[in-house]
Amino acid sequence: MLRELTVNDFTSVLAEGKATPGGGAAAALSASLAAALTSMVFNLTIDKKAAKDCPESVVDSMKEAREATDRFRERYLELMVDDASSFDELMAGFGLPKNTDEEKAVRKEKIDKAKERVLEVPLMLAEEAFEMYDSLRVATEYGNKNAISDAGVAAILIHGAIEGAALNVFINLAGSEVNEENIGLKVKTDELVEKSRTIKEDILSIVIDKIYGRQ
Amino acid sequence: MLRELTVNDFTSVLAEGKATPGGGAAAALSASLAAALTSMVFNLTIDKKAAKDCPESVVDSMKEAREATDRFRERYLELMVDDASSFDELMAGFGLPKNTDEEKAVRKEKIDKAKERVLEVPLMLAEEAFEMYDSLRVATEYGNKNAISDAGVAAILIHGAIEGAALNVFINLAGSEVNEENIGLKVKTDELVEKSRTIKEDILSIVIDKIYGRQ
Repeated sequence: MLRELTVNDFTSVLAEGKATPGGGAAAALSASLAAALTSMVFNLTIDKKAAKDCPESVVDSMKEAREATDRFRERYLELMVDDASSFDELMAGFGLPKNTDEEKAVRKEKIDKAKERVLEVPLMLAEEAFEMYDSLRVATEYGNKNAISDAGVAAILIHGAIEGAALNVFINLAGSEVNEENIGLKVKTDELVEKSRTIKEDILSIVIDKIYGRQ
Repeated sequence: MLRELTVNDFTSVLAEGKATPGGGAAAALSASLAAALTSMVFNLTIDKKAAKDCPESVVDSMKEAREATDRFRERYLELMVDDASSFDELMAGFGLPKNTDEEKAVRKEKIDKAKERVLEVPLMLAEEAFEMYDSLRVATEYGNKNAISDAGVAAILIHGAIEGAALNVFINLAGSEVNEENIGLKVKTDELVEKSRTIKEDILSIVIDKIYGRQ
């Protein structure tokens, strides 16, 4: 199972000439790394010297945000596995026999179902990675200043995950019917990437200001 | 050792309230994932149906580029480990006793040496991650079109690694003397991030064109 591979082996398996794991799984892992870094900022702040002047309400916000980032870290790893397994299902569908009408029908049903899932996983990753920004803003605003670059890297990796998931949405949509639903998904995903870019740049400018002691 | 942790455990360890591993290590891992995805594109192309119309010279370029990406994948994992260990050295230096003049001198020497290394590792990561773009361009231009989104995710993750390494350069420079050398490093790193952004956007526009069959 992908999650149980060592980091060494994961990068080796990713490099192999097989369709899975691929860019979708790498994007999901990037999101999980971002969630982990955000949790790290909270863990270097809450109950530490860095929080000694924090009002209790701010500490409570950080604790709540940390619960969310811990959940997201786990969730994005699930999506990493789902990305690979949904594509494996699709490949299995293509491999089914198609000699009789019945076989053809079974094969088509399996392929159609798998295609839906292959599209659904990166759509979920893009949307759910975007949800990380609320917690990340809390970490950037109130977290330990010595870990401000870690919050910055988290912003970079979350946006990367969203951009990467979007490419996977687009390549799957490109092979699908041009209908209202699919056009809607394309537009929605484009908008999500643009909103994410703005938030990421906003967070990074706060990070840079804090690095240089300007706030 | 970080490289031997499972993906599950790596993300958990990253989330802990310890200074290492942190954003620098996550950025280096992002670069290694990008190198792996680029190798994957080559491995889905060379000696496969996708390369059947490729002139021999193009196949040779892809083989050469694959050798480079295989080396980079390994190299960025080394930098991931170095990032964490150099910071651990610095922390160990701060922990040394400073009661006598001799102790103070030993402590200062250790801290100064560690600080140099803590700055050097993200500088190397930014520069060496940038070197990935040559191979990635080859993968984007000649690689298996079914894997074009994987090349796109690689571009996103390489740029993310460079941006993330830059934040680590900046936070370390911010605590250092403002001298000609350090200003030079700041300017050089800013320029590298900007050049990287341009190349990444360029590669992504090719990826998007290929996804929609426009080239």
